[in-house]
Amino acid sequence: MALLFRSSVDSAARWRGELTRLTAELDIRLWPDIGDPAEIEYALVWRPEPGLLASLPNLKLILSLGAGVDHILCDPHLPGGVPIVRLVDPYLNDAMGEYVALQVLRLHRQDLDYLAQQRSGIWRELPQKNACDRPVGILGFGEIGQNAGRKLAALGFPVAGWGRRRRTVSGFQTYAGPEGLCQLLRRSEILVCLLPLTPDTEGILCARNFAALPPGASLVNVGRGGHLVEEDLIPALDRGQLSAAALDVFREEPLPPGHPFWRHPRILVTPHIAGITNPKTAAPIILDSIRRFEAGRPLLNEVDPAQGY
Amino acid sequence: MALLFRSSVDSAARWRGELTRLTAELDIRLWPDIGDPAEIEYALVWRPEPGLLASLPNLKLILSLGAGVDHILCDPHLPGGVPIVRLVDPYLNDAMGEYVALQVLRLHRQDLDYLAQQRSGIWRELPQKNACDRPVGILGFGEIGQNAGRKLAALGFPVAGWGRRRRTVSGFQTYAGPEGLCQLLRRSEILVCLLPLTPDTEGILCARNFAALPPGASLVNVGRGGHLVEEDLIPALDRGQLSAAALDVFREEPLPPGHPFWRHPRILVTPHIAGITNPKTAAPIILDSIRRFEAGRPLLNEVDPAQGY
Repeated sequence: MALLFRSSVDSAARWRGELTRLTAELDIRLWPDIGDPAEIEYALVWRPEPGLLASLPNLKLILSLGAGVDHILCDPHLPGGVPIVRLVDPYLNDAMGEYVALQVLRLHRQDLDYLAQQRSGIWRELPQKNACDRPVGILGFGEIGQNAGRKLAALGFPVAGWGRRRRTVSGFQTYAGPEGLCQLLRRSEILVCLLPLTPDTEGILCARNFAALPPGASLVNVGRGGHLVEEDLIPALDRGQLSAAALDVFREEPLPPGHPFWRHPRILVTPHIAGITNPKTAAPIILDSIRRFEAGRPLLNEVDPAQGY
Repeated sequence: MALLFRSSVDSAARWRGELTRLTAELDIRLWPDIGDPAEIEYALVWRPEPGLLASLPNLKLILSLGAGVDHILCDPHLPGGVPIVRLVDPYLNDAMGEYVALQVLRLHRQDLDYLAQQRSGIWRELPQKNACDRPVGILGFGEIGQNAGRKLAALGFPVAGWGRRRRTVSGFQTYAGPEGLCQLLRRSEILVCLLPLTPDTEGILCARNFAALPPGASLVNVGRGGHLVEEDLIPALDRGQLSAAALDVFREEPLPPGHPFWRHPRILVTPHIAGITNPKTAAPIILDSIRRFEAGRPLLNEVDPAQGY
């Protein structure tokens, strides 16, 4: 069984090490040294070059190195009929939840202001309320969204979640659909985006939706760069409609040098590190998908390309 | 019943407003307009001038505006035999817990490095583990310490607590005494100080104890400035023995202009804002203490001056 590994951000050496430690059955081919393309049955990928997957005539299963699969579905030559599995790794979910908790707490506690005060040597207390008086809304309330929601609730924040479909999640107010989105936005002083990127969710973080938030709300984007209409953000911040934004994902990654987000005083930029896939915890999950496929058992977390996740 | 209010950091107007809203019985005197000192029976204070309390011949009860009372006990003229009550306010405890959670998450997620990278326009992922692999130790495991501990545990951190006396706290490893301190330090990659300042705890954050922490550990001080041996911190950071420190309290407050902590790249300075006393939630608690005293019922949270808290 040959598996192609292709990622520009994950360590090929660590992945080969972990997979090899777990099984001797896999013949791991690190792009670009893929050998005979006809031998490759599995592809473990992050942002594969368009056409790469189509060049593998006997490809049986595509495995995403991340929770999202937009980086695969955007390939115009994506071979139809080959199942795609997204990575659902509790360790990765926890990492994302930690990042969200950090950024929400930071925005709640006026950290950008205190950092600026320190740089200027200013000792000044700012008025502050507690988390119980700061409602947070989470766009995308699947496993990652709920993980973040539980962490935020434990910190005292009133948390609500929104998704395409209505979900009942014990302990949380939930909303769904376009009308539910308005309701969620209206109550969210901090808005967190954890959505998958699909045609329906692209550009959801836009001027119109910013205007529906309470004045001075702030934003955490941990979904995809495509969720944010970039040109709408800085005007909303400069008008004070939004008070700050913490962004981990961008339309173009790495965020290009000279991009105005780098230097805006109300924008926090992190280099897509909210949830870094950990080969140690993810490799057994990848291997389980392959074994299920080989045994003809149902795949877990198989993607519906029509839904986009 | 006359009550003297004296604080350089709390709003006299807001306190008068809240107390007046709750009762018509209190004659509130805002320092320095205290009227006849002999009429004052209660003193609600933060860092009263040495000798101020002794100048009130009929003082019956001293009420602290904060959880700590070192700012009262340090008065060399403190009248003996007048009971002192410290403020225990769940809202204040939550605020402190939020601050601790923010700073611990920040240190755990290498936030100072990512902030520096943003300032330099650098897009670089740093190796990162999850909270479950980052043990946190809390010095001072009373109500505030346990509140912080619960929030940190919900975020995934393994949390242990230390105090003068052994406590059994469900769900947490606890340590006590000098030997227990060594054990706690040895396991704590992030050390949080929430202790009361007493002769026993002064200077506990010192070179010798830093050396007992795992290499590259970091520090959050939300206790008092007197807990930290200031001259030990920068050498420990510059050697890499400690990797960062978040400090909310200082030997001299406001932190003097030109103090090296303001500009050190591995030190985060906030202006004693971890837990700001909220008149709305604290005023009823203060009033309850006065009513208990008037009725001859036992006081809650009365200070033992010999213990220092």
